[in-house]
Amino acid sequence: MYDLIVVGAGPGGYTAAIRAAELGLKVGVVSENIGGTCVNYGCIPTTAYLEASRLAAKIKNAADLGITAKVENIDLKVLKEHKDQITTQLQMGVRSLFKGHKIDLIEGTATVENPQTVVVNDKKIQTKKLLLATGSRPKVVPFKGLDKVDYLTTEDVFSLTELPHRLTIIGGDIFAIDMAFVLAPLGVDVTIVDAAPEILATEDDDARNVIKSELKRMKVAIHSGVKISEIKANQVLSEQGEHFDFDQLLVVTGRQVDLSIATTLGLDLDDWKRHVKVDRHYQTSVKNVYAIGDLIGGYMLAGEAMAEAMKAAGAIADHPEPPVDRNLLPLFLHTEPEVAHFGYSEKTAAEAGYEVQTSMSPLAANGRNLASGGQGFVKLISEKKYHQILGAVVVGPDAIEMLHSIIAVVQSEGTVDELSDMLFAHPTYSEAINDAAKALLGKSTNK
Amino acid sequence: MYDLIVVGAGPGGYTAAIRAAELGLKVGVVSENIGGTCVNYGCIPTTAYLEASRLAAKIKNAADLGITAKVENIDLKVLKEHKDQITTQLQMGVRSLFKGHKIDLIEGTATVENPQTVVVNDKKIQTKKLLLATGSRPKVVPFKGLDKVDYLTTEDVFSLTELPHRLTIIGGDIFAIDMAFVLAPLGVDVTIVDAAPEILATEDDDARNVIKSELKRMKVAIHSGVKISEIKANQVLSEQGEHFDFDQLLVVTGRQVDLSIATTLGLDLDDWKRHVKVDRHYQTSVKNVYAIGDLIGGYMLAGEAMAEAMKAAGAIADHPEPPVDRNLLPLFLHTEPEVAHFGYSEKTAAEAGYEVQTSMSPLAANGRNLASGGQGFVKLISEKKYHQILGAVVVGPDAIEMLHSIIAVVQSEGTVDELSDMLFAHPTYSEAINDAAKALLGKSTNK
Repeated sequence: MYDLIVVGAGPGGYTAAIRAAELGLKVGVVSENIGGTCVNYGCIPTTAYLEASRLAAKIKNAADLGITAKVENIDLKVLKEHKDQITTQLQMGVRSLFKGHKIDLIEGTATVENPQTVVVNDKKIQTKKLLLATGSRPKVVPFKGLDKVDYLTTEDVFSLTELPHRLTIIGGDIFAIDMAFVLAPLGVDVTIVDAAPEILATEDDDARNVIKSELKRMKVAIHSGVKISEIKANQVLSEQGEHFDFDQLLVVTGRQVDLSIATTLGLDLDDWKRHVKVDRHYQTSVKNVYAIGDLIGGYMLAGEAMAEAMKAAGAIADHPEPPVDRNLLPLFLHTEPEVAHFGYSEKTAAEAGYEVQTSMSPLAANGRNLASGGQGFVKLISEKKYHQILGAVVVGPDAIEMLHSIIAVVQSEGTVDELSDMLFAHPTYSEAINDAAKALLGKSTNK
Repeated sequence: MYDLIVVGAGPGGYTAAIRAAELGLKVGVVSENIGGTCVNYGCIPTTAYLEASRLAAKIKNAADLGITAKVENIDLKVLKEHKDQITTQLQMGVRSLFKGHKIDLIEGTATVENPQTVVVNDKKIQTKKLLLATGSRPKVVPFKGLDKVDYLTTEDVFSLTELPHRLTIIGGDIFAIDMAFVLAPLGVDVTIVDAAPEILATEDDDARNVIKSELKRMKVAIHSGVKISEIKANQVLSEQGEHFDFDQLLVVTGRQVDLSIATTLGLDLDDWKRHVKVDRHYQTSVKNVYAIGDLIGGYMLAGEAMAEAMKAAGAIADHPEPPVDRNLLPLFLHTEPEVAHFGYSEKTAAEAGYEVQTSMSPLAANGRNLASGGQGFVKLISEKKYHQILGAVVVGPDAIEMLHSIIAVVQSEGTVDELSDMLFAHPTYSEAINDAAKALLGKSTNK
């Protein structure tokens, strides 16, 4: 009898398992894919490939720095092996952590009979508590003709061993744009075909403009507001009469969770019947059954799942903590420049009733950025009276690492004043954060 | 009659001038070199050249990522032009900010007659208050024979238009090591000859070990504990009988300040008679004469001078603020990986009477770091009782940008608990910060 069975060994599942074991529980983990989407088809492969994409882009501009160099060839097989090694290493890391914490790893597909009985490989496993961290899979919109053509999802794209020549990506959200920034610099001729009137609908307008101009510079064609009528062997056709030719097609039309265990257990779902409903301790409507990660919705990000994992494991082991504050969750795009943000936007802050004060510090005047030839900005969204920081958008070469400084202030109940007073190294991109804070207090020396 | 004359237009001088003007003062700046050491021979040129150095190093390892590429040639003339453009752009930025704030820029060398009278180009300028921000220059130890050979200092090295073949650097402190990391990856055969028993004496032991192994990997020869007996045309000779051959010699044996104005005004100096003594509002022993930056000692860093500039300008304009807390000042090396730190070391914290608790999170297990092939660690130095963060050392590809997150927590009076609780994006280098904090609280899921 286990104290806890975790279903799923993605970042949410493995983090929860280790934390629960640390808190003294006897834990088993059922997994069909150690590391989950993140390690196998998501953020880790993306990050690994981006190393190559960014390097290829830099070599293109090396002459500006006096370096004569040329990309002679890109062998996707080698890049894939590089990625496979990292994936394997991280998977081995999880196995070794499990071993160290005496967590049983049960490889196979889990079904459940009841909240205390999990079935894997026809074997029944008894547990006191159950944590579902089964993640999500690509959702493929069933366009007419799609079933008759070969197409890729984000789960296949990192298995390619040859670069496509002309790739059409259907979709315009974060994951679709990430893929464009991975593949275009490697020499792939990328076309984005999206139903929405504008790509990256969830992002800040200024950030989107930077990314759009960068996509343009990379010669990525963006077609928004396209109503796809049919997909043929090498063409996407639109109701508007356009055709988008491709050698390979990548469909990035959202993600969906597998609700089969939730259905078996009769768990309450959210209003859209898409995700499992949980309370503030990540407990579902059925006692002793918990859920975290993509399964409960939110931003469907690894960092989010890992944070929820810590909280859920705490609650399961009778060390409850307050829930994850999604408003303080850093979100980011794997673009170049990177886009990172958290909290309220100008619009949502105003809608929430705050008297909003915003400042924007462009990287154009930033010494480190001049040296690196980057672009971007720091935008701080705050409220007037107490100088509370409500949110921020950072666009730049190191945006996601930088954003954490702002979140650190908010987490520690600091305000714009602390961000303005704190000392920054020179020259760093992060100085733009300081400048944006100083600007809100009339103390910027860059204006 | 000016309200304030600032002598020096480095980061300290220009920041103070702009801030004072912002606070309503009529300001003049006397400068012989807009941007000072930082913009002309210091952090900005270093950062600009490092773009090339790091790119050249990455191209060398591009095959690991499946990219066939080779550096055919490095034209230092082009790199120098790239740097010159950035320097010019930053100088123009300062000029334009001065213009916008109606600050008079008086180009020339300043002498002073008295605290109210500055002389530039034989013209007397009257001012109510005076701020000295004259910075520092390379100090050259007068080794026997040095006066008879051509040698470079950090002020000349960025004027070279051809890469040296064999370069010997005399010195082993931060600025000397920075130069090795700038030049070795560009193909220069670098030898470090240092009198101290160990390079980077001021740095964390673990950080130094990483840097030493990296220098070794770059085939930079390090000779510590060398007593130089004489310098000949193409050789450094030691008392121990060694000889270090060079085509070019770079002497990096410290920095010194020009005390001539201080002497004229009879300003009190520190105990070692090396720097000007100031009170907590950066006022010298003579009323209405202020000093900041290298002139008053400290770490001799641009970021420090800029922070002091804000405080001094505030005091001068009757808006006094508490002084800069050097303990919260981020310090860093332009190495690869970068080394960044602030606050107490394990040793100084113990000496200060704290019950020290340290944790170390290696980047070896960090997903982003695996993808980039970087190396490093995050070390947190805290005290046991209140979990106060006393200091940190970050070694890694983005160390200096990352370090700001930890300082942000301390600035906002947060502790290890806030750093542990805050949400981090995945995969980022910064997660190692979170892991180090969690480890101190027994919550790490990476151990």
